[in-house]
Amino acid sequence: MGKLLLLNGPNLNRLGKREPDIYGSETLEDIKEKIIATIEPYQYQVDAKQSNHEGQLIDWIHEADKCYQGIIFNPGAYTHTSIAIRDAISSVDVPVIEVHISNVHKRESFRHTSMLASVCEGQIVGLGSKGYQLAAMYFIK
Amino acid sequence: MGKLLLLNGPNLNRLGKREPDIYGSETLEDIKEKIIATIEPYQYQVDAKQSNHEGQLIDWIHEADKCYQGIIFNPGAYTHTSIAIRDAISSVDVPVIEVHISNVHKRESFRHTSMLASVCEGQIVGLGSKGYQLAAMYFIK
Amino acid sequence: MGKLLLLNGPNLNRLGKREPDIYGSETLEDIKEKIIATIEPYQYQVDAKQSNHEGQLIDWIHEADKCYQGIIFNPGAYTHTSIAIRDAISSVDVPVIEVHISNVHKRESFRHTSMLASVCEGQIVGLGSKGYQLAAMYFIK
Amino acid sequence: MGKLLLLNGPNLNRLGKREPDIYGSETLEDIKEKIIATIEPYQYQVDAKQSNHEGQLIDWIHEADKCYQGIIFNPGAYTHTSIAIRDAISSVDVPVIEVHISNVHKRESFRHTSMLASVCEGQIVGLGSKGYQLAAMYFIK
Amino acid sequence: MGKLLLLNGPNLNRLGKREPDIYGSETLEDIKEKIIATIEPYQYQVDAKQSNHEGQLIDWIHEADKCYQGIIFNPGAYTHTSIAIRDAISSVDVPVIEVHISNVHKRESFRHTSMLASVCEGQIVGLGSKGYQLAAMYFIK
Amino acid sequence: MGKLLLLNGPNLNRLGKREPDIYGSETLEDIKEKIIATIEPYQYQVDAKQSNHEGQLIDWIHEADKCYQGIIFNPGAYTHTSIAIRDAISSVDVPVIEVHISNVHKRESFRHTSMLASVCEGQIVGLGSKGYQLAAMYFIK
Amino acid sequence: MGKLLLLNGPNLNRLGKREPDIYGSETLEDIKEKIIATIEPYQYQVDAKQSNHEGQLIDWIHEADKCYQGIIFNPGAYTHTSIAIRDAISSVDVPVIEVHISNVHKRESFRHTSMLASVCEGQIVGLGSKGYQLAAMYFIK
Amino acid sequence: MGKLLLLNGPNLNRLGKREPDIYGSETLEDIKEKIIATIEPYQYQVDAKQSNHEGQLIDWIHEADKCYQGIIFNPGAYTHTSIAIRDAISSVDVPVIEVHISNVHKRESFRHTSMLASVCEGQIVGLGSKGYQLAAMYFIK
Amino acid sequence: MGKLLLLNGPNLNRLGKREPDIYGSETLEDIKEKIIATIEPYQYQVDAKQSNHEGQLIDWIHEADKCYQGIIFNPGAYTHTSIAIRDAISSVDVPVIEVHISNVHKRESFRHTSMLASVCEGQIVGLGSKGYQLAAMYFIK
Amino acid sequence: MGKLLLLNGPNLNRLGKREPDIYGSETLEDIKEKIIATIEPYQYQVDAKQSNHEGQLIDWIHEADKCYQGIIFNPGAYTHTSIAIRDAISSVDVPVIEVHISNVHKRESFRHTSMLASVCEGQIVGLGSKGYQLAAMYFIK
Amino acid sequence: MGKLLLLNGPNLNRLGKREPDIYGSETLEDIKEKIIATIEPYQYQVDAKQSNHEGQLIDWIHEADKCYQGIIFNPGAYTHTSIAIRDAISSVDVPVIEVHISNVHKRESFRHTSMLASVCEGQIVGLGSKGYQLAAMYFIK
Amino acid sequence: MGKLLLLNGPNLNRLGKREPDIYGSETLEDIKEKIIATIEPYQYQVDAKQSNHEGQLIDWIHEADKCYQGIIFNPGAYTHTSIAIRDAISSVDVPVIEVHISNVHKRESFRHTSMLASVCEGQIVGLGSKGYQLAAMYFIK
Repeated sequence: MGKLLLLNGPNLNRLGKREPDIYGSETLEDIKEKIIATIEPYQYQVDAKQSNHEGQLIDWIHEADKCYQGIIFNPGAYTHTSIAIRDAISSVDVPVIEVHISNVHKRESFRHTSMLASVCEGQIVGLGSKGYQLAAMYFIK
Repeated sequence: MGKLLLLNGPNLNRLGKREPDIYGSETLEDIKEKIIATIEPYQYQVDAKQSNHEGQLIDWIHEADKCYQGIIFNPGAYTHTSIAIRDAISSVDVPVIEVHISNVHKRESFRHTSMLASVCEGQIVGLGSKGYQLAAMYFIK
Repeated sequence: MGKLLLLNGPNLNRLGKREPDIYGSETLEDIKEKIIATIEPYQYQVDAKQSNHEGQLIDWIHEADKCYQGIIFNPGAYTHTSIAIRDAISSVDVPVIEVHISNVHKRESFRHTSMLASVCEGQIVGLGSKGYQLAAMYFIK
Repeated sequence: MGKLLLLNGPNLNRLGKREPDIYGSETLEDIKEKIIATIEPYQYQVDAKQSNHEGQLIDWIHEADKCYQGIIFNPGAYTHTSIAIRDAISSVDVPVIEVHISNVHKRESFRHTSMLASVCEGQIVGLGSKGYQLAAMYFIK
Repeated sequence: MGKLLLLNGPNLNRLGKREPDIYGSETLEDIKEKIIATIEPYQYQVDAKQSNHEGQLIDWIHEADKCYQGIIFNPGAYTHTSIAIRDAISSVDVPVIEVHISNVHKRESFRHTSMLASVCEGQIVGLGSKGYQLAAMYFIK
Repeated sequence: MGKLLLLNGPNLNRLGKREPDIYGSETLEDIKEKIIATIEPYQYQVDAKQSNHEGQLIDWIHEADKCYQGIIFNPGAYTHTSIAIRDAISSVDVPVIEVHISNVHKRESFRHTSMLASVCEGQIVGLGSKGYQLAAMYFIK
Repeated sequence: MGKLLLLNGPNLNRLGKREPDIYGSETLEDIKEKIIATIEPYQYQVDAKQSNHEGQLIDWIHEADKCYQGIIFNPGAYTHTSIAIRDAISSVDVPVIEVHISNVHKRESFRHTSMLASVCEGQIVGLGSKGYQLAAMYFIK
Repeated sequence: MGKLLLLNGPNLNRLGKREPDIYGSETLEDIKEKIIATIEPYQYQVDAKQSNHEGQLIDWIHEADKCYQGIIFNPGAYTHTSIAIRDAISSVDVPVIEVHISNVHKRESFRHTSMLASVCEGQIVGLGSKGYQLAAMYFIK
Repeated sequence: MGKLLLLNGPNLNRLGKREPDIYGSETLEDIKEKIIATIEPYQYQVDAKQSNHEGQLIDWIHEADKCYQGIIFNPGAYTHTSIAIRDAISSVDVPVIEVHISNVHKRESFRHTSMLASVCEGQIVGLGSKGYQLAAMYFIK
Repeated sequence: MGKLLLLNGPNLNRLGKREPDIYGSETLEDIKEKIIATIEPYQYQVDAKQSNHEGQLIDWIHEADKCYQGIIFNPGAYTHTSIAIRDAISSVDVPVIEVHISNVHKRESFRHTSMLASVCEGQIVGLGSKGYQLAAMYFIK
Repeated sequence: MGKLLLLNGPNLNRLGKREPDIYGSETLEDIKEKIIATIEPYQYQVDAKQSNHEGQLIDWIHEADKCYQGIIFNPGAYTHTSIAIRDAISSVDVPVIEVHISNVHKRESFRHTSMLASVCEGQIVGLGSKGYQLAAMYFIK
Repeated sequence: MGKLLLLNGPNLNRLGKREPDIYGSETLEDIKEKIIATIEPYQYQVDAKQSNHEGQLIDWIHEADKCYQGIIFNPGAYTHTSIAIRDAISSVDVPVIEVHISNVHKRESFRHTSMLASVCEGQIVGLGSKGYQLAAMYFIK
């Protein structure tokens, strides 16, 4: 049986509660439920974690190695600034897909660059909460 | 019954024939077949077009308006240079998802910026030919 | 009797049909009619052409040499990217006025630079469809 | 009966006296006469002012509000440096057209950017003293 | 008894009359009254001056030396362009606080840099007309 | 009764102990006392928190929502680098004033830009520990 | 027997007819004749094609694969802008030499960079029409 | 008797376990052992700490003041991004040597700049795990 | 008999009174006296003018044409910002030497570029008040 | 009888001995022999010089004036940095062709710009040691 | 028995005689003595050379190949400008350590980049003359 | 009796022989004669040296220390590139004036920056060979 990690970075704990015009009205819990519905038929499970702490995210990525078939990762604002998370992803074997709910290219210019993109498997951007599900499906060969 | 347009830009006619280490060994025809397999159960069809001509791609985007539920678009190298295609996408109502087979962020720096990203619905990058299928699934609500 | 060429670049075939808040509600046909009304009293004619293909625009500029007293040219998005059209203008004797319907300086920063400006006679920017008429009047000494 | 303001910035008092290869041989007085000839048939008047002082130009723009149907403005070198004039234009209701006698895009690169362009109605560039007349005609609907 | 100088730069004469959504509806006169109300209990007076002329502001800064305990200075657009005013501030002993009514960091990027900031005592930005009062209070030890 | 949050970022725990030529000799405790003295007459309270951890600051900003009338925030070095804190401020309703003890514009160039400025109500810079008090007074209408 | 392709890009159809001070007075036909004279003794043939259309050049490069021993390519203005032609060259096995008649480094700065240089075998620049002949001789080992 | 602090930043807990081609096969424990062997003859001790948390590293640097003769610090990815750690180093008296195992100048360009270099005593770069020992020897006068 | 104009820009009225470590302790009057002493033996006179107003300096440059053999010009801060003064210098025949008392290249980087240098005859920089005298001697052939 | 100078800059004395994957296995002596074989039939001679000293290369270029029909010059690393060699080339009448053995555009970005290109007759890049021979042939009209 | 080369670039002949606040008071001779003291116990010798000539340094690097176990190299100002020395280092097998006496990152920004760093084994920066000794110890395995 | 050093850098040995439109028709010998005529009445001598070798110029600057009252230095192209000469000037006590015959600000942009300006006493630019004489006069107090 397979296992995926749903990892969310800073401020995503407030998803569904604030700025619904940008991020939609679903909570992280809703998203997790949808992923379960998507992957359960394929005998896959998902664990979900969220933190506002860069160091905590690094710790979890290290621990994920050898334990998951893939990480569905929305790094929030750390996408644009964290070389440390980049190095963490480089240091593990588990493949990572970078997911952004909103189309970051429609927003401020500092959101157009990603420190993580080149060490991830790929990116899914701007497809709303559905992006998480598509990432999950990618991992289920 | 729904209809999607699979649109491919310059040099993608050579897919599967050249540089398989970057782009994989599937041809555009193979990709179209997989999309059909994915969307047929939902009563969706797909048309596929490819051109190396920027002007031709613009003409097709204009014609696609009102005719398709969505465009799955790999603009190839025009991604990084064509404001004209950007304006064409802006001028139609049909939503567009930008797809790249390879993870462009691992390649030359001029491939890291997209003139089109901010007028598309979203992007799927680096997930191989599977990216086209995920884009198709996005349009099938 | 004099002759002018009204040349329009990519996406301007959709003028009057889309995004009227930016480009107004007149079609290219309407604009041509107004130019005729303006220049006919002075014994001038106008031919009108539009293409989304950069190469086609270059071909037409070459052919225009020796045939027209002036080109009223809205190069659309190619304004900002096409050195090839620039070279075409440099290679002919007929004077060219670059016209933009909208005030490009109020829009995205990539629309603030013109590859063509320095090889044209001059520019008329932001004066709506009336800009075409003023350009026509300039050529009628 | 309508009224236009012809406003000229620094060094334009020397027009027609110096550097005729760049700016032509007409004086500001000549230009004013031509504008009168152009607009009189339409029951329009024009007032003409020139100053080398940035602050004076700002004062005049403030005073012009509610008094004129339009300002035909050649800001000279302040085009490229004056945020203060930009703010003055923003603070009045009267529309302004930026006019340059020479094609600034053929000259030094610091003349290629305008601090004023995006708060003006539009620009007429490189069409010689005729540019002032075309601007006048634009305001006479 | 102490004395402060309230100095305002270009276009601030129009405060309260134009663009109230950006600058509020109070006039310079209203602001002066509020400052008086704030500082009178501490035996302080205020003089108020405004000019659109860069040179005039420099003259006044020179004259202010030795006469005031502090200058509350909103340099308007000259904030971003005037090295000459910067040098004037450097050449006097009286401390200067740079005040901006609106939060300049929410506006155009050319408003994000200040030529004056590093020679002033400090800045108060974005706190509306209340910013002038807080600056006055700072000077009253 | 009103309540304010005094929030201090990295290294500010060492205030008053180190580099007094830059930051003065008052401790955070001294500053809190002064704020209390300032706001108590107006029936206002203040809570004070400090952390060197970016994630902790984000957590506290989330928790502050609905609980305080305003946050007086000196983000220290995170001012210049933290998009994550920026997003946290955007995600809450409580207004925030960014305070810097020293005039950052007199220091290294990397201290001249703020990732937070445009999502805060305003900034008070360079006015020493008095800047905190002025910020407190701003919130007490 | 060997075969070379002489490929010329936009505006080179006007060679010999216009701007002889920059490009010389020889036509493409003259150049072809000279190449024939150079290579015939070695049992080599040459085909010559010219287009102003970026897409057409890409199509021809695709078709050239396996058919020619080398491409002598003057990409004209597309040298500086076309990533699509770059990808076309990358996708074929036939070696390409980039030729420029004029010394592009003596001209406008946008002509100093080549999008194609790093995927070509090499460049011959500024040696007039003779550059084409030298390129031909290179291919004849 | 002297005391040194061996401080390691993000991802260095994985040293010796991953990417041995870049970082070698020694663990942090091995490195500590070697330092002990180097400094024991001189009556020196070493304490070793590692964290992935920027805030934690700052806390430890604060605590190190007055307790150690020197800090041997490999800040990992925070080298390139953390102004907060820079400020922490500035705020303590204990001298710090920045150590990098790999030659960062052979790697991605974002690894070529250090936010910390100018507040450290010096740097030792690219000399493998031996760099830690050399730093230790530097502190033992 | 010959005549020179000694022209000084913003803040130079304060010369000798302020910041003597940068600008020395001589006043403009002292400098004028020294120039007289230098040039009188050669039958030359000097007129001296100073203004803080950019527009005033432009007016004076216009008036100087045909009246002086040379202008010894210290443009102060306008050196770095004024295209309008540059255009004024271009529009007169009288040669201008740009003089700076201090070595501007030892100061802030915004003082390292001159908008005026390329339209002046030459520059004398950093040689103190003696620089004015050397400029005067240059004009006396 | 004609005479050419084969001039090679820094590190080219090691040609053929080191890094054969980049520079090939031929020595400078081999290259000279090939040039002789190429030009002897045309009654041309070649002299060959190499130095690692920038000043020596300048001296030789000065001396070459009037003595040679052309210089075949591989300036090695000085290509990218030496304005002094550029000025030397400008100061002589003998035409110079810049030759690079490897395709510099495939290497580090600092090798993509040439300080010399715009004062040379032209460039031959990336065609191996054969590039020297083609340059020699160019000079033999 | 092993042998090291101590190589010093421009201006280091003046070490100990000038600017002792930056470079300390030891001469090159002193440094050589200390290195001897350090390495003699390990049966190692050192040769010392210094030149202000870039070409001479290149010649010595070439000659050093096969003769030394390592080069301890302080390239002085050529660190920041010399691609030619970089190429010389690349062309030899002997490993090189770049040493700087002062912490270059505390000095002018043009000293923060090294053309040589990425082709050296590593760098030791800011550790005074002791840095040379540490480099010597590195080579003695 | 005083002594000055006239030092000229690369390509200035060709002065008066080449490009007289830029550099005039006087040779270095002529310039030396004029300086002698200027300074002899004041009991001053001058020595003249010229080299195309950067290292040679550095050697001479070192030797000049304590021997001359001043150096009149035209560094030619090394002005713009040589940090090594900059360090040499910094390392001696004798004051240096940088002289340029032509107005470098009217020439290519790479001639607009000087690596030496901020360590020299001052600059004299664009005043022809007379600039050397003015520099000599500066040193004769």
